[in-house]
Amino acid sequence: MSIPLRHRLGPLLQPRSIAMVGASNQAGRIGGMPLDLLRHFGYAGKVFPVNPKYQEVFGYVCYPDIESLPEAPDLVVLAIGAEDVTAMLERCHAKGIPAAIVYAAGFAEAGESGELLQRTLEDFVERSGMVVAGPNCMGFANLNLQAHTAFASVFRNVPPQTQPGRVSVLTQSGNVCSAVFALIRRLGVPVSHFINTGNEATLEFSEYLEFLAQDPETDCVIGYVEQLRNGRRFIDAALSLAAQGKPLVIYKAGETEKGSEAVRSHTSALAGDLALYQAGFEQLNVIRGTDFAQMADLAYLSGFRQRAGGRRVAIVTMSGALGAILADKLIGAGLDVPTLPPALQQALRDGIPDYGMVSNPVDVTGNVVNQPDFVRTIFTALAESDAIDTVIVYAPGYLLDRMADTLVDVCARFPRLFVAIDTGAAQCRARLAEAGVPVFDDLGRATQALAPYCLWLARRPAVARWAALRAAPPRHDAAPALPARLNEHDTKALLARYGVPSLPEQVCADADAAVRAAEQIGWPVALKILSADIAHKTEAGGVRLDIGDAATLRTACAEVLAAAQAYDPSARIDGLLVQPMARGGVAELIAGVTHDPVFGPALTVGLGGVLTELYRDASHRLLPVDAAMVGDMLRSLKAWPLLDGFRGRPLADVDAACAGIAALSDAATALGGQAEDVEINPLQVRGRGAGAVALDALVLVRPAL
Amino acid sequence: MSIPLRHRLGPLLQPRSIAMVGASNQAGRIGGMPLDLLRHFGYAGKVFPVNPKYQEVFGYVCYPDIESLPEAPDLVVLAIGAEDVTAMLERCHAKGIPAAIVYAAGFAEAGESGELLQRTLEDFVERSGMVVAGPNCMGFANLNLQAHTAFASVFRNVPPQTQPGRVSVLTQSGNVCSAVFALIRRLGVPVSHFINTGNEATLEFSEYLEFLAQDPETDCVIGYVEQLRNGRRFIDAALSLAAQGKPLVIYKAGETEKGSEAVRSHTSALAGDLALYQAGFEQLNVIRGTDFAQMADLAYLSGFRQRAGGRRVAIVTMSGALGAILADKLIGAGLDVPTLPPALQQALRDGIPDYGMVSNPVDVTGNVVNQPDFVRTIFTALAESDAIDTVIVYAPGYLLDRMADTLVDVCARFPRLFVAIDTGAAQCRARLAEAGVPVFDDLGRATQALAPYCLWLARRPAVARWAALRAAPPRHDAAPALPARLNEHDTKALLARYGVPSLPEQVCADADAAVRAAEQIGWPVALKILSADIAHKTEAGGVRLDIGDAATLRTACAEVLAAAQAYDPSARIDGLLVQPMARGGVAELIAGVTHDPVFGPALTVGLGGVLTELYRDASHRLLPVDAAMVGDMLRSLKAWPLLDGFRGRPLADVDAACAGIAALSDAATALGGQAEDVEINPLQVRGRGAGAVALDALVLVRPAL
Repeated sequence: MSIPLRHRLGPLLQPRSIAMVGASNQAGRIGGMPLDLLRHFGYAGKVFPVNPKYQEVFGYVCYPDIESLPEAPDLVVLAIGAEDVTAMLERCHAKGIPAAIVYAAGFAEAGESGELLQRTLEDFVERSGMVVAGPNCMGFANLNLQAHTAFASVFRNVPPQTQPGRVSVLTQSGNVCSAVFALIRRLGVPVSHFINTGNEATLEFSEYLEFLAQDPETDCVIGYVEQLRNGRRFIDAALSLAAQGKPLVIYKAGETEKGSEAVRSHTSALAGDLALYQAGFEQLNVIRGTDFAQMADLAYLSGFRQRAGGRRVAIVTMSGALGAILADKLIGAGLDVPTLPPALQQALRDGIPDYGMVSNPVDVTGNVVNQPDFVRTIFTALAESDAIDTVIVYAPGYLLDRMADTLVDVCARFPRLFVAIDTGAAQCRARLAEAGVPVFDDLGRATQALAPYCLWLARRPAVARWAALRAAPPRHDAAPALPARLNEHDTKALLARYGVPSLPEQVCADADAAVRAAEQIGWPVALKILSADIAHKTEAGGVRLDIGDAATLRTACAEVLAAAQAYDPSARIDGLLVQPMARGGVAELIAGVTHDPVFGPALTVGLGGVLTELYRDASHRLLPVDAAMVGDMLRSLKAWPLLDGFRGRPLADVDAACAGIAALSDAATALGGQAEDVEINPLQVRGRGAGAVALDALVLVRPAL
Repeated sequence: MSIPLRHRLGPLLQPRSIAMVGASNQAGRIGGMPLDLLRHFGYAGKVFPVNPKYQEVFGYVCYPDIESLPEAPDLVVLAIGAEDVTAMLERCHAKGIPAAIVYAAGFAEAGESGELLQRTLEDFVERSGMVVAGPNCMGFANLNLQAHTAFASVFRNVPPQTQPGRVSVLTQSGNVCSAVFALIRRLGVPVSHFINTGNEATLEFSEYLEFLAQDPETDCVIGYVEQLRNGRRFIDAALSLAAQGKPLVIYKAGETEKGSEAVRSHTSALAGDLALYQAGFEQLNVIRGTDFAQMADLAYLSGFRQRAGGRRVAIVTMSGALGAILADKLIGAGLDVPTLPPALQQALRDGIPDYGMVSNPVDVTGNVVNQPDFVRTIFTALAESDAIDTVIVYAPGYLLDRMADTLVDVCARFPRLFVAIDTGAAQCRARLAEAGVPVFDDLGRATQALAPYCLWLARRPAVARWAALRAAPPRHDAAPALPARLNEHDTKALLARYGVPSLPEQVCADADAAVRAAEQIGWPVALKILSADIAHKTEAGGVRLDIGDAATLRTACAEVLAAAQAYDPSARIDGLLVQPMARGGVAELIAGVTHDPVFGPALTVGLGGVLTELYRDASHRLLPVDAAMVGDMLRSLKAWPLLDGFRGRPLADVDAACAGIAALSDAATALGGQAEDVEINPLQVRGRGAGAVALDALVLVRPAL
């Protein structure tokens, strides 16, 4: 059934033959369970148990050692202790076996001696080029081939799979893989791959994901991640899935400090920065798994991905209260439940009594289901309306059954996504699903899966736009080599080359020069000490604002120089910086590009000041960004109204702010690995049409190695 | 089985005899379904169907009219149209029937003509004193009496009830009542009352709740509320349940704007202010329902309320990943997963291999379950530790089965709450539940119910303290009558009588007096226009700060008076207010008491300034409060670190702030209905030991009727 992929992981994930070293004839032992499953489910490939104790295991001929096998299989599974693993891998490699799975625990997760074993394993893999999964891995299953290599009892405890698998489960924990797989199978959703990655010594999550993105038998990936080790490959794979319209759902562990601690102990891995994970996932249209049941429901929903839906939902129900609860939940989860257009409301009112509702939620009342023609009118009107994207029908089972024929007909005529929720008693579930209507039997569960699914549908165009931006050549050539440190003036000059706006300031050697500069710039002015060695100028007494005359400026120059010298006698002073006083600011923003160890360069934008940090009101995006994306970031801030005329404040020049921040990102891209952090703090945003200027800026040059 | 309560609702909720007007002999009709249920479930009281068309209905003798009944039953159910209801109630009242249920829709929820019908009904009830439930109500069930008056098919579709009911379901929607009841019964939890209140024309939610609080057969109430109509009675009933240790769970509809809209249409009721509902519920230890399944799970958990638990949770699992996920979820839901004390960790490490974890979550690894003695050691150590309150054991079914004996033994010896989560396959569920161990079969669902349940347990002492504070006499006598309006100075003087601190300011008639005042107070000073007619002094140009000398002050006096007159020529000017400049503030707070239409007087506290509003960072409490409660409110703010030395800032005088705000609350209590709003804005909080002062204050006097 499987079409072999031309991918390095092909022998691992689509094996035509499997050897099991440490084979057992007991189904309850880890060396026996996969063999039992291969036999039970009728794997069509060759199976080679290896164990000198047996002649035959589960009906397969057993071999005394790997060297005795009649041929080199695609894949070998090692059910042996940690200390014997690398030596055995060398023998398997010598035999010509391209891929292996290592079950054994006791590697990096188990302290120093284990870490040594893992390094030895890694060295061998690097030398040999063998594909080695694990260690500390439960094994896999390709359910379309019935290629079972996992010591997991779950396969016998779930409904047998009669349709071709189309959902893959990919996790960094075997227990999570089993738990999620079981829930997916209990919903009747057919699975293609069951993969858990273990310690990822030499083969990490994103490479499996890359395989699955290329796999025509995978329409949806359900994942669990503790830490990503290759952000760039992950981004590529996620975008590939997104481009194909295949949902990628990932539960990210380590969402709280305590969770992170447990994850660290578990995989010897530091959890990445959560805010950036969240932002990156949204940008890549990765659906965040929040619960195993929700992930299984998303696997189910992915079977309806050909239908057109989105975030504007119409609710049809027979109970005002249930409609209100559903609306609460959907809106709380980020969807819209818009008031229906007047003409549509009027059409509905024709058949809905006064005590029903037509605005949305639509309460058709119990009587209406006895009028099949009017039910058709309602569904057709909602299927045709351009004011909504998705229709949710919430009805007790017997009422849903009465409307099922009509629903099937309407769905055959219109591509719009209709979703049904009943209370568990509907007979028509299979028939509706066949017609393209997913059916849920619990309001809470339905919402938890439907809301992120509808948001996924809605975000698809934005993700495609970003993928195109990322694929385009950068807007500037790579920057020339930077000096070891940059002072404020040099930093602004550097950023200005990429379009970051700043004020016309002057570097002055002494007070006389400062006075001349002020007269040229125009009073009042601001005075700052200029030194790459003094990061916190205000703390150092190195800033004076609103200086209105020459005498005051002269005094200020002397004081500022003295204060800076007292603050840090070893600091090299580059001069005095005279700037015009920055007036007319509506708000001050902070914008910076940092380099995440997983995702690479990322932009963070927020309102300046101490409260932003306390309220964690910041927006993040992976680079590259353009001005339109920066606008989305600003609008997503809780503080956005401050830029948008809140309580009679002037409207800010948001376009100028977006252009300035996009220029900062361009600069960071051009600087590449030379800069650790590139930051404007603050970016003063003025009234509409009056622009935005960087009042201070920082480029943290990466030390040469 | 039921013990009759001496409560006005006794005949309604514990009827010894029931008449049904509009009786039908078809079980599918609303006039027939309850009779069918009464017969089917063997109600022991008398049943009197009323309908001239029949001699007998479901085996009960049928009467032609209400006047023909051989006696006056406790309760009459009206299955007749809206327009006939009040006339029939009058006849029932004449017959001597004390209580009635009205099914009919078409009252206030259905526009003008319905509102008229409802007013007529209300007038009759007020005249007669009859107890009338509904209208637009689905009817009730007392399952301990099998007294069925609801036209709901759900009773036949759930497992039969073999134990005495102990959970009551009380909702403002019949559909929600049925849905939640079904889920509770499917968990095997026995129900005592099934109540839905409909339009609440004359009998509202809180009166039913009061009955249930007195009902010895109700250990837990599961509720659904769109709007509360009697906050004081609700508070009394909720505190009574809290004092008895009986959980009250309420789903509050209208959590979002759209949800509110639907609720308004549905019940013609304005949804209350959500933030205050949330705060009030927490203060009354009402558990917020978030999902029907979660509410059913809480009904299940309430059966274990005799066991001692709380918010500090130890997690025992066989998988690092599953432990991490569980910890994430519990912490995200507000619980603590504290690192275990070193001695306890050492005791666990004795039997847990290196690749397991002992810090919490405790990963005992799969091997440990084969060592029953060590499992006993673990459970006993966790049952005895005073570092935790609750223990969660998360294990696949067969592993849980192996540990069940030990768990039962330990729970017999220690009162600590142990909770088990398996993956659905455990055989030992009933045995564990019998031993006091609730068992869940899904991690997500378990967390959603367990977290609020553990918080409920943890909050019990605080709620008892507040109930005592509320029951104590107020600290001040009622205030004398207020003038129609108060200016800033009079307001501060009024509040000062209750202990609200302010600066020594002087009211001056002219510039000369102002200069004398300033010299007495000490330069620099602040100058404000004093007028009860000018609420926004700064906008009116009526404030000058940091005035350092007499000449400047004289000019300022003239300018301020001129500006105020230009701003509002009709404003009565009471003089000029001279204040010392307020220095040394660490933070500025806003504190105000408003009168909520549902809950009555409530205190709101937040950081001053525009961002607080954008970030909705405020804390609310129902009055009365004391200084300790104000401290809790301040610490719950996201901005709290600003008072607590964030980033090297000075520590604020939190004690003084708490005392000042508690004094404000005392003042509001003493003013009672005379004041609409009582507010300090801002309260300047200084460094530790330096106090807090009200820089401005407002009492909005309620207009005399």
